Amino acid sequence: MMKVGIIGGTGNIGEGLARRICLGEKYDVVIGSRDAAKACTAADGVVCELKDRKCTSTTCSGTTNEDVCSADILIISLPFERVAETIDKIGKTVFENKIVITLINPMIRNPKEKYFLPDPPKEGSAALAIKTMLPESTKLIAAFNNVAANKWMELDEELDYSVAVCGDDEEAKTIVMDLVGSVSRLRPLDAGPLEMTKVVEGITPLVITIAMRNGLKDVGVHFS
Amino acid sequence: MMKVGIIGGTGNIGEGLARRICLGEKYDVVIGSRDAAKACTAADGVVCELKDRKCTSTTCSGTTNEDVCSADILIISLPFERVAETIDKIGKTVFENKIVITLINPMIRNPKEKYFLPDPPKEGSAALAIKTMLPESTKLIAAFNNVAANKWMELDEELDYSVAVCGDDEEAKTIVMDLVGSVSRLRPLDAGPLEMTKVVEGITPLVITIAMRNGLKDVGVHFS
Repeated sequence: MMKVGIIGGTGNIGEGLARRICLGEKYDVVIGSRDAAKACTAADGVVCELKDRKCTSTTCSGTTNEDVCSADILIISLPFERVAETIDKIGKTVFENKIVITLINPMIRNPKEKYFLPDPPKEGSAALAIKTMLPESTKLIAAFNNVAANKWMELDEELDYSVAVCGDDEEAKTIVMDLVGSVSRLRPLDAGPLEMTKVVEGITPLVITIAMRNGLKDVGVHFS
Repeated sequence: MMKVGIIGGTGNIGEGLARRICLGEKYDVVIGSRDAAKACTAADGVVCELKDRKCTSTTCSGTTNEDVCSADILIISLPFERVAETIDKIGKTVFENKIVITLINPMIRNPKEKYFLPDPPKEGSAALAIKTMLPESTKLIAAFNNVAANKWMELDEELDYSVAVCGDDEEAKTIVMDLVGSVSRLRPLDAGPLEMTKVVEGITPLVITIAMRNGLKDVGVHFS
């Protein structure tokens, strides 16, 4: 079975992702953290939940961000500010030829004025910036960007959204679309080259703003 | 009855918009063009269609882009490249205190490689650039950006989409949201300040790319 490693997997999104991917019963998950003990605790939580939900075909373990990188597919689930130092610490060469997923959306938060805005780095998006931090052979794909953060952990609710998947390596994109399609009711859509993340990352502050201003909760996106 | 004027109303989107707004039976429409005769012909087409569809409460006429500006709400339906010269020709002062809607999405088209990308001017979006071309008192609102262009004219089909409405004047935004809500089944959503057009204008090349790459037709957006 393919293994998905989550770098920075002890955050809310990371732990939700781990649960949701395992519950899809097609991939094992390894949660990574700066602190291996913290990762193990998080993984234990996932394993308990899988047991409760009678999911026996997949499993979850925890380790350091470094060791997570032996997985087949990596997901970077970190605040954008911490990505460069984390890649540096792990060592760039580890990422040679790897499929790496970013779901990061840099945002300016202004809840007082009831809006969030995109806050991309000078490259135009977090994904385009992360690309410059990784070896050329790394297949960087953006996915899962616009799923409402709270929804990952609400396991009794299906995730019924479209997921725009962007990247410049078509084969890696297909592999990531399969992963997306294994999670709840997410609907993967090929959204073109990595440059499209200039738009896709911005949709998250847009839907948060729409939720705040129109009295809605956990707004997501459907392309149809 | 309030009047909506469409600057550059003889294009495909403009003529579709005119039909859809009139059919909502809440606003009269004036189609504007550089060429008044062309605008009159377009308006005649709308009037015929309204008759066919037993819509008697609203009407449509045609005139020059200059004369269109006496309407209560103006929609700029021009290629981005033509906006500056058109505003110049009409005269900036005409737009003092006016509610002006932009639905423009500048794009780079690459159908061969199966993607379109946003192509914003240096201000970050067409809307933010157009704001600098108009008097400070103009209330510029972005709306209708992401409705699939082909759909405007297919009157037998309802437009069942979310419409992100962005602007810095809350009162004008409410008036525009009412207009959006009068058209077919469009669902207006307050999407925050005009700066959010950096995201909203980019969603059009995104949905076109998604359509091209996933074998879909006329993809639209639903926020829910």
